Amino acid sequence: MFLLHPQVEPWLVRGEEGVKLTLLTERSEGLTVMLRCEPDNEARFIDMTHTGREAELHRFEATLPWDSGNDPTVYCFKVIEEGKQYWLAGDGQHHRVPHRDQMFRINRVDTPPTWVRDQVFYQIFPDRFCQGDPSLAVQTGEYTYGSGRMKVVAKRWGEPVNPELPATEFYGGDLIGVRRSLDYLQNELGVTALYLNPIFVSGSNHKYDTEDYYNVDPHLGGNESLAALSAEMKCRGMRLILDAVVNHTGTNHPWFNLHGRHDSIGATQSAKSPWRDWYYFDEAGYYYGWNGHKSLPVLDFSSRGLRDAIYAGPNAVLRHWMRAPYSIDGWRFDVIHMLGEGPGSNNNAHYVREFRKALREENPQAYVMGEHFNEATRWLQGDQEDGAMNYYGFAHPVREWLAGTDIAYHAARLDTVEFGAWLDSARGRIPYDNQLTQLNLLDSHDTARFFTLVGTDTEAMKLAVSLLFAYPGVPCIYYGDEIGLEGGQDPDCRRCFDWDRNHWNRELFEHYKALIALRKARPELRHGAYQTLLAEGDTYAFARYTKESVSVFALNRGDRPHAVRLPLWVLPLHKKHWCAPGGEPIANEPGWITTILPPRSHVILLGED
Amino acid sequence: MFLLHPQVEPWLVRGEEGVKLTLLTERSEGLTVMLRCEPDNEARFIDMTHTGREAELHRFEATLPWDSGNDPTVYCFKVIEEGKQYWLAGDGQHHRVPHRDQMFRINRVDTPPTWVRDQVFYQIFPDRFCQGDPSLAVQTGEYTYGSGRMKVVAKRWGEPVNPELPATEFYGGDLIGVRRSLDYLQNELGVTALYLNPIFVSGSNHKYDTEDYYNVDPHLGGNESLAALSAEMKCRGMRLILDAVVNHTGTNHPWFNLHGRHDSIGATQSAKSPWRDWYYFDEAGYYYGWNGHKSLPVLDFSSRGLRDAIYAGPNAVLRHWMRAPYSIDGWRFDVIHMLGEGPGSNNNAHYVREFRKALREENPQAYVMGEHFNEATRWLQGDQEDGAMNYYGFAHPVREWLAGTDIAYHAARLDTVEFGAWLDSARGRIPYDNQLTQLNLLDSHDTARFFTLVGTDTEAMKLAVSLLFAYPGVPCIYYGDEIGLEGGQDPDCRRCFDWDRNHWNRELFEHYKALIALRKARPELRHGAYQTLLAEGDTYAFARYTKESVSVFALNRGDRPHAVRLPLWVLPLHKKHWCAPGGEPIANEPGWITTILPPRSHVILLGED
Repeated sequence: MFLLHPQVEPWLVRGEEGVKLTLLTERSEGLTVMLRCEPDNEARFIDMTHTGREAELHRFEATLPWDSGNDPTVYCFKVIEEGKQYWLAGDGQHHRVPHRDQMFRINRVDTPPTWVRDQVFYQIFPDRFCQGDPSLAVQTGEYTYGSGRMKVVAKRWGEPVNPELPATEFYGGDLIGVRRSLDYLQNELGVTALYLNPIFVSGSNHKYDTEDYYNVDPHLGGNESLAALSAEMKCRGMRLILDAVVNHTGTNHPWFNLHGRHDSIGATQSAKSPWRDWYYFDEAGYYYGWNGHKSLPVLDFSSRGLRDAIYAGPNAVLRHWMRAPYSIDGWRFDVIHMLGEGPGSNNNAHYVREFRKALREENPQAYVMGEHFNEATRWLQGDQEDGAMNYYGFAHPVREWLAGTDIAYHAARLDTVEFGAWLDSARGRIPYDNQLTQLNLLDSHDTARFFTLVGTDTEAMKLAVSLLFAYPGVPCIYYGDEIGLEGGQDPDCRRCFDWDRNHWNRELFEHYKALIALRKARPELRHGAYQTLLAEGDTYAFARYTKESVSVFALNRGDRPHAVRLPLWVLPLHKKHWCAPGGEPIANEPGWITTILPPRSHVILLGED
Repeated sequence: MFLLHPQVEPWLVRGEEGVKLTLLTERSEGLTVMLRCEPDNEARFIDMTHTGREAELHRFEATLPWDSGNDPTVYCFKVIEEGKQYWLAGDGQHHRVPHRDQMFRINRVDTPPTWVRDQVFYQIFPDRFCQGDPSLAVQTGEYTYGSGRMKVVAKRWGEPVNPELPATEFYGGDLIGVRRSLDYLQNELGVTALYLNPIFVSGSNHKYDTEDYYNVDPHLGGNESLAALSAEMKCRGMRLILDAVVNHTGTNHPWFNLHGRHDSIGATQSAKSPWRDWYYFDEAGYYYGWNGHKSLPVLDFSSRGLRDAIYAGPNAVLRHWMRAPYSIDGWRFDVIHMLGEGPGSNNNAHYVREFRKALREENPQAYVMGEHFNEATRWLQGDQEDGAMNYYGFAHPVREWLAGTDIAYHAARLDTVEFGAWLDSARGRIPYDNQLTQLNLLDSHDTARFFTLVGTDTEAMKLAVSLLFAYPGVPCIYYGDEIGLEGGQDPDCRRCFDWDRNHWNRELFEHYKALIALRKARPELRHGAYQTLLAEGDTYAFARYTKESVSVFALNRGDRPHAVRLPLWVLPLHKKHWCAPGGEPIANEPGWITTILPPRSHVILLGED
């Protein structure tokens, strides 16, 4: 029996005493319908009241009491029909009581900022996006870098990336260039928010090895360029988040100062250094590097001094950049799950909560977003992060389903039922508000480009892009994806943006623009509920819907055309007509729509009155 | 492809640096075999080495590093064959990366006491098991009880229970009687450990409303009878655990004293009472009762005084009874998930950890066991409880599968595949050491008796009993189940034990004795690994095994005979012969055994060299 629980208004209404919830069922005759919750850690069943119909479905309502001892409050539904039990949980339907980790969940206290879900993010690797002032560019041989004392190399814009020099070749992109591109990003493409990879002083091109948390690298334009960028973005109504790399510093940071003068007092020079305990040194005096990389000494949050410097002090790094004239809207936290006390992640959750608190003190609407290459469920229960770079719940399954490879670049043949179950079970483990502020992505500076992974098949890429813009969460475009920029694994995925429009994949670019426009026009794509309609063979279809509006996406990843018959009766709203964006109405029988999906293609159907 | 990961020695060996693990696979040619772990919260893959064969299987080995920031350490296995991925997690096999909550887990620090898994527990409701000294018995009208001032009633042994008087009728069982029954329990039946329902001073028959934590109720024989019982049990090598009811007291407890003299200073008499903050009173001065029952005022652990009284002080309740002359071996904690600060469960985990710490200080081998009517996964990760009353992972699925009703007495038709998946997924979420110290049960003083739920069908009951004694965890017999005592929901499930042997269900009794003897004789039933062999139609089969010995159980719940062909090749040991306990060898082909299961029956097969 079909059961539906839309986790958005008007089907879910928060109150002081609890949350008014709605369960919609296929039938109502002879059903026992209960809400199950655990307000004091003990199971409690609340009978639901049949209050009418919504389109083809029957409406049952009850009020969920807030959990007194836990946030989020978890719940599920139990329906009995002739001795057969149907349970609906966050990850889908079951025939027995679901585990707690599978249940629906909603936070009373810690909810994410609502502006986030209306954005279209664009991720920029600053050295490679746009050069604004050539005089700032790093010059070949200008300095040496790292323990190998590699001479830095200046490259011509668009020259191939040399995988042997992942950190020390420079193309001269800067923040002046980013600012100059805002017309392109905002007016032409439709982007509303930027996420910049690290921009603070560092000898590397990627700048994940910070040397000075209080200064934007002069080669990127210095602090003034960030202030100017931020000011113009504010005028344009755009949002900006930066990359917080506080798990480790570079070895050149004065706190550490591996290569500094022998009379300096960096942590590595002297056990008596005032910063000695800001890093972790073992008994033999060896320091720990992130993932074993000695160039990235790990910070130790058991040090009070470090905590003050990073988040607790009055002008702590994380606070500083949230203030004028920079006024950023939030931080993306690099490898946030790995930091903590000592060399590892001890007491990690505490520090993530402290980061959140500091950010929210500066700006109650700050976006706290974590980088997690793998499952981030623990960090996304409301009290830690608002969202994560959604590799686990989006990029990974989409990659396996469309590109046939997993995130470790192992071959993977994911069938469509598994694909749907993956999406559902990853989403279901976090509160819906946090699902809506997940940063969805297809690729990044740390992965091969999706377009390359699908063998530059524009049709397959378009399927992925449609998923990106229709799936719950906020989409983030990795710079250049929209023009068909190619690139293998890091550092090849960091090629220069190609400003010669003759080189662009126009079909792909137009598709991005269309999907961005559609997302902006359709509130259901930004904050509607989600329902899978079909998962079989090579075909996956789903709906996003609010009380007023609905969009349906049907995708065929296969090499053969596929006729699909989509059950629209499972949605709690009637629409008279269905049509493609800007297209002709499509004929449909009551409650169903039938359409043919050509090979590697998809259709979008919009419900209209 | 079949994959097996036995979580016991010699396939799993703990070390200082990590845990040596074994994965056994159906094939080895062309496989990529990896161990996946998260030692610093980031995914890491470790290649596994092919080191030979075990019976029909191929052995791969690797060392799992301990997680530096989390206990337990979680892991799973990833196997790739021709682009198809097979993942093995704690809850079974998957075709994509499992969620963290599904992964295998093992604790470095907090492991349960090993004596527990070798026990056979027997739960006694003291007023109803055996009368040793009639002169102690409550007399009709001896006192009144509760807010209704009900007169207590003395009943004749064996008279029907009156559901209108759930707390105030008494049959006169006592601890002297328990002590006198030790020959029966230990020598005849084979029990090795007792769990007693509450025995401290209280006006009710169930005594979940304590009036004095330092005295055994005189009607049960007082402190001397407990000391004598404990001393004799020690002599016999038996173990004893008591019921810790520290979520609430009775209203007659002097700390609370609802019905006391008006000049007393109980919490309910005066806001200035020294015990006022040991309970939770809201702003209007109303106190909270457990589950709304005003007779059970909830204790508030935010009070320092209460914490000292219950667990922290030098002679705290939980410590007191662990010391001579009582020297109990552990506590069963009543509704432990519901206690905490304020009226609810706030900061619950902290207090459970503190209880554990206190018990272990008194006795490093103390058994910390919680009552959880529902999922207890959160409390069973090693740092809180050693085991729980395993309703969720055992009693519930067995009830649904064999009795067709769920724990809320709603009809439930659970198919066998779901049954197996429920067992696997509940087990898989907790460390294997804790699985082995779960207190498995079919029923208790809080549920209808299992024998009644299956309509007094002895064959069905025998299936359940075999599961009870063969399933990972320590079996607990609710007094009287072994003789076929019947009883519906509480309080009917608390009928008097029937000492007239002519009334006993001899077939059932012999079955209990045989299974207890078998469990004692076969180490694999006490601490071996577990593997499902078959789950289809009405038939479920599984093996318990160590490196040396193996038992196979095949159960048919249906009304028709069923031929099963059991895959013995999935086990990592060869046995020449298979026979029923004490029976003839059964013919088998290499790697398989075929047998016929009559309706509602089961076979036990023991591998012999």
